[in-house]
Amino acid sequence: MTAITAAYYRGDKTFEVTQIAATPPKAGEVQIKVAYCGICGTDLHAYHGNMDARVGFERILGHEMSGTIAAIGDGVAGWSVGDPVVVRPLDPGAPNPATERGHDHISHNLKFIGLDSNGAFQELWNVPAFTLHKLPADLRLDHAALIEPVAVACHDVRLSGLEAGEDAVVIGGGPIGILVAMVARDAGGNVVISEVNPHRLEIAQKLGFDTINPLETDLKEAIENRTAKKGADVVFEVSGTQPGVDAMTQVAATRSRIVMVAIHATKPTIDLFQFFWRELKLIGARVYEPEDYEKAIAVVASGGVDAETVITDVSPLSDIQTAFEALDKSPTAMKSLIKVGTEA
Amino acid sequence: MTAITAAYYRGDKTFEVTQIAATPPKAGEVQIKVAYCGICGTDLHAYHGNMDARVGFERILGHEMSGTIAAIGDGVAGWSVGDPVVVRPLDPGAPNPATERGHDHISHNLKFIGLDSNGAFQELWNVPAFTLHKLPADLRLDHAALIEPVAVACHDVRLSGLEAGEDAVVIGGGPIGILVAMVARDAGGNVVISEVNPHRLEIAQKLGFDTINPLETDLKEAIENRTAKKGADVVFEVSGTQPGVDAMTQVAATRSRIVMVAIHATKPTIDLFQFFWRELKLIGARVYEPEDYEKAIAVVASGGVDAETVITDVSPLSDIQTAFEALDKSPTAMKSLIKVGTEA
Repeated sequence: MTAITAAYYRGDKTFEVTQIAATPPKAGEVQIKVAYCGICGTDLHAYHGNMDARVGFERILGHEMSGTIAAIGDGVAGWSVGDPVVVRPLDPGAPNPATERGHDHISHNLKFIGLDSNGAFQELWNVPAFTLHKLPADLRLDHAALIEPVAVACHDVRLSGLEAGEDAVVIGGGPIGILVAMVARDAGGNVVISEVNPHRLEIAQKLGFDTINPLETDLKEAIENRTAKKGADVVFEVSGTQPGVDAMTQVAATRSRIVMVAIHATKPTIDLFQFFWRELKLIGARVYEPEDYEKAIAVVASGGVDAETVITDVSPLSDIQTAFEALDKSPTAMKSLIKVGTEA
Repeated sequence: MTAITAAYYRGDKTFEVTQIAATPPKAGEVQIKVAYCGICGTDLHAYHGNMDARVGFERILGHEMSGTIAAIGDGVAGWSVGDPVVVRPLDPGAPNPATERGHDHISHNLKFIGLDSNGAFQELWNVPAFTLHKLPADLRLDHAALIEPVAVACHDVRLSGLEAGEDAVVIGGGPIGILVAMVARDAGGNVVISEVNPHRLEIAQKLGFDTINPLETDLKEAIENRTAKKGADVVFEVSGTQPGVDAMTQVAATRSRIVMVAIHATKPTIDLFQFFWRELKLIGARVYEPEDYEKAIAVVASGGVDAETVITDVSPLSDIQTAFEALDKSPTAMKSLIKVGTEA
């Protein structure tokens, strides 16, 4: 038995870092030596106790990870020990109307690995082999920990149908909004970020984006001025707020596409007349599909995402408690990584 | 000078039927001997005084028409006197960001002929030649007066991407909802109509549709039962009501398409979480494009729309006042036609 370090969420904003015995991978699984694992907004949501009913108090969180293959279970072909990988943490479960139509990533029986089962805040992690994506040998594993959230952004941008030269507005410049903006820019979009938080505005500007603070500037007018009265061809609603939903129809061009990235916990009011009148399209987008992961690997490997700016801090697994506490309070942190592996 | 009969909207639910002098078609125009013209919901809206600021009191309404070419203006090629035609009553006006991208039908400068300029409730009507669509010689001109509203339905169904064998729910079984249902059925969809009005339910059933009254039956459950828990692949929201907007996300399958046909004058609340969670798509759809008119001509000519049931009454132009009054009060009327021409 190999003893490994793992971090358990125990409820009430508390992690316990402890030693456990590693188990070998089952048939169909591989065992991954986890290198880095980022802290997702969802992990913070769990940390706050908002997902206790779903995750329980015996849960190892973490899914924005990178690592190398440590062992391979029976029946797994095509992989070698030492391969650098990331995990697409989705298990579609039993067949259902969604999977029958090829939509495994939004399966009615979807299990999210790292929430519904144990995740990557542990040194050795067993996962189904079908979740793996191979990394280029020269991609830094800290940068590779961004691939999961970048894959979300790649999914959003792909579903938007954004073409080079089109005008895009990202409403909400938090961690996901910034990644959406970077992927949209990498795809050739003319991107502007609408954000009200001065710290986030500063980061967005540092990353080279034009920004608008809609509390200070009339957003609709500003977008009309940028686009010769046309409006935005693509709008990403990432704010999850009523003002964001109001803004999305105001800045959208005739026949434009609005991508619903945010999770709206309450039902906002919406200007449906604008959808009719200008033939707007609203496109819901959740997680990612395999091609989005491949795209995200390519974008991170090519520097399309400025990993050095996005990753604002790295803490060892032993300090996960303080890392969550710090991220929770920080107005400026973008992406906090946990260095899970003890090697360099 | 030829004297013709024309019906002017004079405000306050009043038409004046009078003799006027016909003017010859200008360059680029044709003159049409109008045969039939249906009363649109928009005409009723104008009749109620709700569009006085737009239409004024010197306006001849009417756009759901059929007729034959009576005269041809200078510079018009490809048309002959006697050709049976319908008019696509849209004038895109000066170039703008919408027309520059090929969306003439939702041009920022769109003029709707028959509202913003005079329409077809007159015996001889001059229109731009670019609005014409030729009819098959054997298509009855009373049936052809349905082509304009059927083209709306064809546009809705085309933008939905409905494929044969897919499950479709039409929310709202009024005149447009019924036509959407007929066109969707003609395209091979398994269509069910949700409607609360008993008279409309009866007409829908008479037309061979499965119907659900959501005041009596749980709509979501009924659609799940019909579709083996999948839900509807395509939803048409034609009701323009909050319950309709609530229902549209409830009955929609994962990755389904919801077409916004209705005009929502107020901003309803919407379950945006469902758009995210199940990757729903909302597609705004307004009026029609030339290909929708060609499709509508084909559907009406082939009997895909049951014209005899849809056309519930025909009145001469001299009786336009009583025809509007009757339609306004009738719980059972679907489509009222005005016979504009005095010939058989």
